[in-house]
Amino acid sequence: MSNQEVAIQFPNGEQKRFAKGITLTEIAKSISPSLAQKSIVGGVNTTTTDLTRPILVDAEISLYDAVSQQGLAVLRHSTAHLLAQAVKRLYPGVKLGVGPIIENGFYYDIEMSHTLVPEDLGAIEREMKKIVNENLPVVRKEVTREQASHIFEEDYLKLELLEAIPTEELVTVYEQGEFVDLCRGPHVVSTNKLQYFKLMNISGAYWLGDSNNQMLQRIYGVAFATKEDMQDYFVFLEEAEKRNHRKLGKELDLFMFSEEAPGMPFYLANGQIIRNELENFLRNLQTSYDYKEVRTPLMMNQRLWEQSGHWHHYKENMYFTQVDEQKFALKPMNCPGHMLIYKNDLHSYRDLPIRMAEFGQVHRHEFSGALNGLLRVRTFCQDDAHIFVTPEQIEGEITLALQIIDHVYNVFGFEYDIELSTRPDNYMGELALWDKAEQALENVLNQLGFPYKINECDGAFYGPKIDIHIKDAIKRSHQCATVQLDFQLPEKFDLMYVNEDNEKVRPVVIHRAVFGSIDRFLGILIEHFGGAFPLWLAPKQVQIIGVSDVHKPYVEKVLHDLRQVNIRVSVDERNEKLGRKIRDAQMQKVPYILVLGDEEQHEGSVTIRAHKQEGLTKMSIGAFAEYVKEEIEQKKLPNFANV
Amino acid sequence: MSNQEVAIQFPNGEQKRFAKGITLTEIAKSISPSLAQKSIVGGVNTTTTDLTRPILVDAEISLYDAVSQQGLAVLRHSTAHLLAQAVKRLYPGVKLGVGPIIENGFYYDIEMSHTLVPEDLGAIEREMKKIVNENLPVVRKEVTREQASHIFEEDYLKLELLEAIPTEELVTVYEQGEFVDLCRGPHVVSTNKLQYFKLMNISGAYWLGDSNNQMLQRIYGVAFATKEDMQDYFVFLEEAEKRNHRKLGKELDLFMFSEEAPGMPFYLANGQIIRNELENFLRNLQTSYDYKEVRTPLMMNQRLWEQSGHWHHYKENMYFTQVDEQKFALKPMNCPGHMLIYKNDLHSYRDLPIRMAEFGQVHRHEFSGALNGLLRVRTFCQDDAHIFVTPEQIEGEITLALQIIDHVYNVFGFEYDIELSTRPDNYMGELALWDKAEQALENVLNQLGFPYKINECDGAFYGPKIDIHIKDAIKRSHQCATVQLDFQLPEKFDLMYVNEDNEKVRPVVIHRAVFGSIDRFLGILIEHFGGAFPLWLAPKQVQIIGVSDVHKPYVEKVLHDLRQVNIRVSVDERNEKLGRKIRDAQMQKVPYILVLGDEEQHEGSVTIRAHKQEGLTKMSIGAFAEYVKEEIEQKKLPNFANV
Repeated sequence: MSNQEVAIQFPNGEQKRFAKGITLTEIAKSISPSLAQKSIVGGVNTTTTDLTRPILVDAEISLYDAVSQQGLAVLRHSTAHLLAQAVKRLYPGVKLGVGPIIENGFYYDIEMSHTLVPEDLGAIEREMKKIVNENLPVVRKEVTREQASHIFEEDYLKLELLEAIPTEELVTVYEQGEFVDLCRGPHVVSTNKLQYFKLMNISGAYWLGDSNNQMLQRIYGVAFATKEDMQDYFVFLEEAEKRNHRKLGKELDLFMFSEEAPGMPFYLANGQIIRNELENFLRNLQTSYDYKEVRTPLMMNQRLWEQSGHWHHYKENMYFTQVDEQKFALKPMNCPGHMLIYKNDLHSYRDLPIRMAEFGQVHRHEFSGALNGLLRVRTFCQDDAHIFVTPEQIEGEITLALQIIDHVYNVFGFEYDIELSTRPDNYMGELALWDKAEQALENVLNQLGFPYKINECDGAFYGPKIDIHIKDAIKRSHQCATVQLDFQLPEKFDLMYVNEDNEKVRPVVIHRAVFGSIDRFLGILIEHFGGAFPLWLAPKQVQIIGVSDVHKPYVEKVLHDLRQVNIRVSVDERNEKLGRKIRDAQMQKVPYILVLGDEEQHEGSVTIRAHKQEGLTKMSIGAFAEYVKEEIEQKKLPNFANV
Repeated sequence: MSNQEVAIQFPNGEQKRFAKGITLTEIAKSISPSLAQKSIVGGVNTTTTDLTRPILVDAEISLYDAVSQQGLAVLRHSTAHLLAQAVKRLYPGVKLGVGPIIENGFYYDIEMSHTLVPEDLGAIEREMKKIVNENLPVVRKEVTREQASHIFEEDYLKLELLEAIPTEELVTVYEQGEFVDLCRGPHVVSTNKLQYFKLMNISGAYWLGDSNNQMLQRIYGVAFATKEDMQDYFVFLEEAEKRNHRKLGKELDLFMFSEEAPGMPFYLANGQIIRNELENFLRNLQTSYDYKEVRTPLMMNQRLWEQSGHWHHYKENMYFTQVDEQKFALKPMNCPGHMLIYKNDLHSYRDLPIRMAEFGQVHRHEFSGALNGLLRVRTFCQDDAHIFVTPEQIEGEITLALQIIDHVYNVFGFEYDIELSTRPDNYMGELALWDKAEQALENVLNQLGFPYKINECDGAFYGPKIDIHIKDAIKRSHQCATVQLDFQLPEKFDLMYVNEDNEKVRPVVIHRAVFGSIDRFLGILIEHFGGAFPLWLAPKQVQIIGVSDVHKPYVEKVLHDLRQVNIRVSVDERNEKLGRKIRDAQMQKVPYILVLGDEEQHEGSVTIRAHKQEGLTKMSIGAFAEYVKEEIEQKKLPNFANV
């Protein structure tokens, strides 16, 4: 082989020889001009690389278009540079910080004297489009540290970043027109590749995320591969905004927050009804699976948290108090309390499995900036359970736990994905037990016929786990349920049972949650159903509206009859027009509105308007009560198309 | 009137003249020797006095026997002196502290080098009996401070007490034989009046209750008017011990405590079942009375507790923590959280009354020495409610609150006493509103026909209140429910509603609890029922026992049929004899035990053994299920005679 050539292998396995120093763009062009046109970035021997980098050694290559994960990431990163360039043009003298990619887009942190307002974003966006149209080539340059220091001599934030680069690492900058940024790359070949982007909003951000540092201004933007993708995203945003649980929480009187307790929800009457229904539903289901419910204190002393390892691993997120002379912590998890209960008795293998459940209120500190309605709070109620088993029982108990989870998620109409995470490098415990346990988890998933993805080496150090990600009505993914094996907690708390050979041996603990956090699950449900809950969860199930005052006795009769069978029903007694009352009940997303007038009174019937459904139905009071009771008992789902 | 005579008026209104200086004993003797014999102490113009004190002025007199409240108190006080005298004889050189009366008896705090053990109490008691038989007269002497200092020169604790007597007060000592005590009296006339007493136990106690002082030894005793009273007391003690909720809590697996969280109960599965039943019972009842359940955070910031006044009045009993840079407190009460919810909305008079309820977990510090099982804890769940009303609605809402309380207490078979506490001297708010409110409370109690006692000037500074004291099965009294008006909280939180004239005015708040603390109420219930709960509360309602293995399929069928209708039922599958299984189920106080053998299997029937009832009954499975369901639904009480 001539050493003026390199051997290039394509993703389909084909091999071809090219002159040494050829670029990916040139290779792509050699195949087809449209391929070169479409490509955003390339791969050379598993490294993502600028299309313009000369190839000097034999390599396997790939070409990524804008739709690929790699291409889209580069597109967004290059759009962050584009943003920075535009800002520098409009506000000379600004200092640039960092500009990474995030979900759907990117941001750039900038120090500038002008305080940005949302109106400025339009002007910046226009400047970005101008630079796109200038079609500036984006050029990678390797520089010495001295050269870099010189290039960024006016940019003290970049100088800080430069200093943080390890000495053995190559320093590179990317240039487009007058703009140059310290960056590892890769990037698009020219600015006109950047077509579908939008600046979204502005916030403050500490330099390098450290609250001891100065506050910079952060500009957020989104960028997509195609116009359609961008349009879909904005449709999704609109839909998500309609379903925003904070907005609906206010409109439907579900919960509130107060500055007297940030991140700690106050449930209003309507929200509390749903919470109680959720709790009762799971409590009854768990009872039928022979779970035993317990209740443990909200705070316990430091000694216990040291023993459990929380003190060492989790202290930063815990709240502390003082009882007598001892330091106590508010529980961030229920496990240690359950271990104490297990230890309160002697156990024989005949007692196992013991399924111990608690609706336990835990407290975990979150930064105030991270708080997000019910989805990210500082205190929440976990539907926690710990199952104490012999190694032989692992498979059976995991099966039962997954059956409960499957049952619950089906009730809400959630599809879900399963991920199995296996032994990490820093695992603790016996290898044989790990192998057995991982095999058990795989067996269970296979036997149940549940598809799953394996995350190799991603288990907790104390045991392998199964995480379940639900998909809500607008396809967002939320991790809620978890089933985790734990070989360490029994060690730490010296848990024992007497086996068939009359020896004291350790049980295995299974941590399990279905909702995860009831608070967060409620937040997800609000968005999933857009506030139009299934009948069994609806705070108000039936709204009665009398046509006029003469119907009052009949209205009272219907109210009474429905209350008798525990339907949550009320009468709109306000001095408002019929139309207004109907609209208000619809706004409140009441599943059934009954309008009662002469005809209904005469017949002993009710005319029913179901939420978001065309047309009216008429039934006798008794038939309606039966119909509603059945819908509640069966926990029927609303028609999603109509949400 | 000769000034050598005094005019004496008897309790029946009769008057008689006696020589000046006559004693109550002599007056009693002049009526009948048995009256003189029976009398323990007297009253002269409303002051309780030794029978031997000369009467120097005209007076209304009374004579109290041992059964009277006054007589019994003196008897117990004199027995404390008797105890001190006996200890001094047996352990020369001891230093005496104080010896007051308490419920059922007395104690004496003593400094002595010998550490008392329970076995010492017998010897002390024998010495006391000896002194009783010596029949020493008990003599009161008025002394100067100098004389007293001299008398107690060896008793430095008494000297401390002497110094604390206000200078304007007369100093008296009581002598019996060689023994003399610094004491205000009064006392019995001689030691042989003291017949029915027993020393109970020993504990440590700080001098004057101050933990900075030295530790003394405290001897507790009881004393009664008659032998029968004393016997009744020991029968009561035995009964109370059988019902002791800490003992039953352990035996019936209801709850546990851990040194990792003193005073904070852990509910085990059986206890949690009862808690859930209690909560659901009250929740459903409250729903039918149109209460709205809410849920508020467990901690809120210091600012809020300052506003509510808890910071100022209750800080010592609160637990604190830190959230971000702010001091937070764990809620000792739910009121402030409910005020925030009220303020979250604008309210019109049409919205009132608003009945806001919460099963709220509160934390209140108690000294470790004061902790007592579930009866005195550091955290408990309050069945709290705040009712926001117009002044006109007070009467109606108090009526409804008392109806709920009456309903609930009847369900448990509790008799109760009502106390109405009126405006104290340090009251806050408008006098007219107080008058109106007190009148409203009286009207309500009168209209409901509930007997009540008025505690003048004993209301809270923020409003008058009604306290309810329940009587348990062995006649002990427990304060549980409370209904309190509050005129101050609406001021402190600037609560408003818009009245019919479109003016913003203050609502009145009613605080209300029925159980009070669910934890404490559960403790009381355990003792009230002696652990043999009514069926609806029983953790296990039915225990099935198969006669032999061949009956297993039938046992399974009965189990399945009963579970189908949500009866809490299980099978004793242990490898034990039938008799043992029956006895164990009885020990667990399971309301119904079903023994299933050939006959039952053949007939499709069950043979029923009801807890603590003679005889067996046989029914079909279906009839039994119906019978049990009805007993549960009606919340029938067990037969108390059989507890």
